[in-house]
Amino acid sequence: MPRLSLEQLGDLARRALLRAGADATMASTTADALVYADARGLASHGVTRVAQYTAHLSNGRADGNAQPRIVASKGGAALISAGSGLAYPACALAVSEAVVRAHEFGVSLVGVTDSHHYGVAAFHLAPVGVAGMVGLALSNSPAAMSVAGGKRPLLGTNPIAAVFPRPHGIPLLIDMSLSEVARGKLMIAAKDGKPIPLGWALDAEGVPTTDARAGLEGSMLAMGGAKGAMLALVVELLVTTLTGAALGFEASTFFVNEGNRPRMGHAFLVVDPGALAGRTVYGERIETLVAAMTDEAGVRLPGERREALAQAASVDGVEISSQLHEKLIELAG
Amino acid sequence: MPRLSLEQLGDLARRALLRAGADATMASTTADALVYADARGLASHGVTRVAQYTAHLSNGRADGNAQPRIVASKGGAALISAGSGLAYPACALAVSEAVVRAHEFGVSLVGVTDSHHYGVAAFHLAPVGVAGMVGLALSNSPAAMSVAGGKRPLLGTNPIAAVFPRPHGIPLLIDMSLSEVARGKLMIAAKDGKPIPLGWALDAEGVPTTDARAGLEGSMLAMGGAKGAMLALVVELLVTTLTGAALGFEASTFFVNEGNRPRMGHAFLVVDPGALAGRTVYGERIETLVAAMTDEAGVRLPGERREALAQAASVDGVEISSQLHEKLIELAG
Repeated sequence: MPRLSLEQLGDLARRALLRAGADATMASTTADALVYADARGLASHGVTRVAQYTAHLSNGRADGNAQPRIVASKGGAALISAGSGLAYPACALAVSEAVVRAHEFGVSLVGVTDSHHYGVAAFHLAPVGVAGMVGLALSNSPAAMSVAGGKRPLLGTNPIAAVFPRPHGIPLLIDMSLSEVARGKLMIAAKDGKPIPLGWALDAEGVPTTDARAGLEGSMLAMGGAKGAMLALVVELLVTTLTGAALGFEASTFFVNEGNRPRMGHAFLVVDPGALAGRTVYGERIETLVAAMTDEAGVRLPGERREALAQAASVDGVEISSQLHEKLIELAG
Repeated sequence: MPRLSLEQLGDLARRALLRAGADATMASTTADALVYADARGLASHGVTRVAQYTAHLSNGRADGNAQPRIVASKGGAALISAGSGLAYPACALAVSEAVVRAHEFGVSLVGVTDSHHYGVAAFHLAPVGVAGMVGLALSNSPAAMSVAGGKRPLLGTNPIAAVFPRPHGIPLLIDMSLSEVARGKLMIAAKDGKPIPLGWALDAEGVPTTDARAGLEGSMLAMGGAKGAMLALVVELLVTTLTGAALGFEASTFFVNEGNRPRMGHAFLVVDPGALAGRTVYGERIETLVAAMTDEAGVRLPGERREALAQAASVDGVEISSQLHEKLIELAG
């Protein structure tokens, strides 16, 4: 498999996005986010998405000239429209606004509407940690999971992410979708003709299935059963009712070229520890918990492994398949 | 089993709390919260707790004369100290502050430190829904669950609750702990000498167990495995680092009379939909999702069942065991 430096990978992605109609800022911000994912072992959200994004830019599902802008604002709260562009420039503006407002008002919540594929939340949250703030990030996505007791997919897989900076050491970074497993695992099992464990998916009739193809036509199950489905509902409500974004079931899947403008919603909550118990208390509390965690063999601090991968990738680059490499070269022109 | 009106139940609880040293406000607010739980079928957080609370008031684990007060404040953020009193007056002050601040700044986050047993989060959030605001409530509790990959209980069962008011109809109300099951289920199984399913608990060595007694000496498992444990970590960090409250493993269990002042932490996030996409959009989005949910047979709106129980209980009262009734009469003096 070809091994590329992160610069080479980012350059291919950026050129492909420019060629498909993204403006310079959208192309470079998006390329940075995709490389961030590949460097951290999150290939499903890395440059493999370039073909999808460029197809959506070409056929109008995303607008390459969209300029994210603030459409509502009051104290610590603000709403950003991504203008149906790719998500990354809008998320960058939202987080930057959220950090400024948390400095001024102690806490901020900035929503994003009319957006596209959210990507890796940790990328968006990184500047929050750098600013010494606590951050939470939420998003919906095209419907993949049913609500508790339901059969039809109504909710996205609705990731929850959080960053907690430390006085010394890299921030704690938690980032997870609320589905039991990623949809990609069903796609691989379906391709290989292999069964899936019960608990991953329901078929179109709402019956638990071990048939990957049936699961893809049905819905993914939430992590933690009914409780996880309830959490996904909370996320769905927060990122749509406050922002006006589309509900998961109103958006066409990202995995096809044709379809509507997905109009997805995101939300970023930022809190300044200085506005509550203060930074000294904050630092003491987080280090006390970290010390108790690392005292146990087998416990890894969240974000630690990804950061080590990123360090290695910055030196060694990352491997991608020949097929993906050729596709990127073709799209970059 | 004796059936008592909600008024009778509340009166017994209030008198018992007063007799154990709670001041008038703490006694009545706490009694209201316990009756709220009993009326909604949540007996584990109802008047059955009176014996525990009065024991803690008598032996100094809770201070009956504590006055909750604002100890830090900036814009939308504030911190309340419960002063080691029972949690309810401090939570009421926190939510009232959070609603006022969300009106002014669009979003607010009010933390509570030096608190006690959190009770049913929905009780705290009710005024948020009445104010037409969106609310989230978080808390930790004495350690019961291990972190992902760990064996020792470090984290509370760390409930997450949310309220979303509707333009017409009762608010959507989601309220869950992050453990797979409540610790009470292990207590019942241990008492009955029955095995528990795998996935509920680990023994003291961190090995999954079907032995309820071994589970009680070990740790509860999070809902959704490692993902649920990560969510519990996020909640634990939010309610301790921002507030200075005790971590779960620093607090003695509530289930014994002796022990330390638990110094638990809570946090309330309140958002004014009017500050983002506006109330018209908010109402349209929530009703669109509700319509899609109720279109499916078998889907129940969160909060609906509890509200129906509360309606019935306000007319018919609730049944409690003779043993509990006698205990309450004894404690009420």
